[in-house]
Amino acid sequence: MKHLLIENERLTRQLDFIIEADRLKSVMRRSPLVDGSRPENTAEHSWHVALAALLLSGYANEPVDVARVVRMLLVHDIVEIDAGDTYAYDVSGNRDKVERELRAAARLFGLLPDDQAAEFRALWEEFEDRATAESRFANALDRLMPLLHNYLNDGRVWREHHVNAAQVRGRMAPVAEGSAALGDIVAAVLQNSLARGLLDEEMFVPAAAGEIE
Amino acid sequence: MKHLLIENERLTRQLDFIIEADRLKSVMRRSPLVDGSRPENTAEHSWHVALAALLLSGYANEPVDVARVVRMLLVHDIVEIDAGDTYAYDVSGNRDKVERELRAAARLFGLLPDDQAAEFRALWEEFEDRATAESRFANALDRLMPLLHNYLNDGRVWREHHVNAAQVRGRMAPVAEGSAALGDIVAAVLQNSLARGLLDEEMFVPAAAGEIE
Repeated sequence: MKHLLIENERLTRQLDFIIEADRLKSVMRRSPLVDGSRPENTAEHSWHVALAALLLSGYANEPVDVARVVRMLLVHDIVEIDAGDTYAYDVSGNRDKVERELRAAARLFGLLPDDQAAEFRALWEEFEDRATAESRFANALDRLMPLLHNYLNDGRVWREHHVNAAQVRGRMAPVAEGSAALGDIVAAVLQNSLARGLLDEEMFVPAAAGEIE
Repeated sequence: MKHLLIENERLTRQLDFIIEADRLKSVMRRSPLVDGSRPENTAEHSWHVALAALLLSGYANEPVDVARVVRMLLVHDIVEIDAGDTYAYDVSGNRDKVERELRAAARLFGLLPDDQAAEFRALWEEFEDRATAESRFANALDRLMPLLHNYLNDGRVWREHHVNAAQVRGRMAPVAEGSAALGDIVAAVLQNSLARGLLDEEMFVPAAAGEIE
């Protein structure tokens, strides 16, 4: 905290981290706001997806600790302060994503007192690994939200980035793994988007995109 | 959900609320981002203050259920979608704030299934009433955050709005009620701001401002 002498070293580190975290508000995503007025930033996305978790946890495939899902979602994108938001369909950006995010996690969580650094890092790793019920449900929400935003903007961002239906289907596969009911929403959005021509099975895809899962 | 036929009425209402909630990202506050690049919006503020709750709950004056504090903070400003953000030091805006926010709560939470509408409304009322330990701590964080943002921007917004030290002191009084340690941060920020001339005891105040608590 600039210019302030705070005798409590633990609190100083916590406040310094909280202030550094403000930069997540300047990390821009590809998905637009629902009203299409501008792209979404990662901080407000994190709020939105945590709010969705409060309301939709009843649809998780397995019983989940909602508070843990929310904590995970509040923390899951903080590494983007250093690593940036990597667009889901960006092949070259996704090649070194893991390395960039590991460096970011070390620096950013390292600002915190050791116990909280370990706690936040564990939440982030749990989210990334998709090995727990809470993580699978958190990932389902994290993938569903931009699908809704893109759909409600008539698929503009998909077309701008030459994204085809197979890519979206692959990207959205984890939604049903976390929640069958939300997986049904994905299926309905995809079907409707294809029917309305918002998304195309045959959209031209640059050669390297074959590497996308 | 535009153009989608979802057979599950409960889920339809929940998704409609979640999509409506996106508008909180377009509600602008007076406080700037820490880097001063633009004003903060209420959705990203809600994320930031919920994140702060995860880290700082150990400083609450009374034991708190952190998950409840976080839920309260995720929901506490949703009424601003209809009611707008009322600047803390805006006398005329604060006169009809309660009425505007009650109408907003009825419409917005009314989009949800009845049980979740009641739950979110109760969280919002609990936040507003400051009658529980969780609410007092949530309010402490909600007031501390813009103080830090304004301080780190050298008090520019205070001067633009002719806010004096007594007003800030009054506005920040609830911080110490929720957390003595965070109250000490407020005192240090105020002392330092006065010493550096960022804030003034005698700043010209428009006549009506006498009505501020």
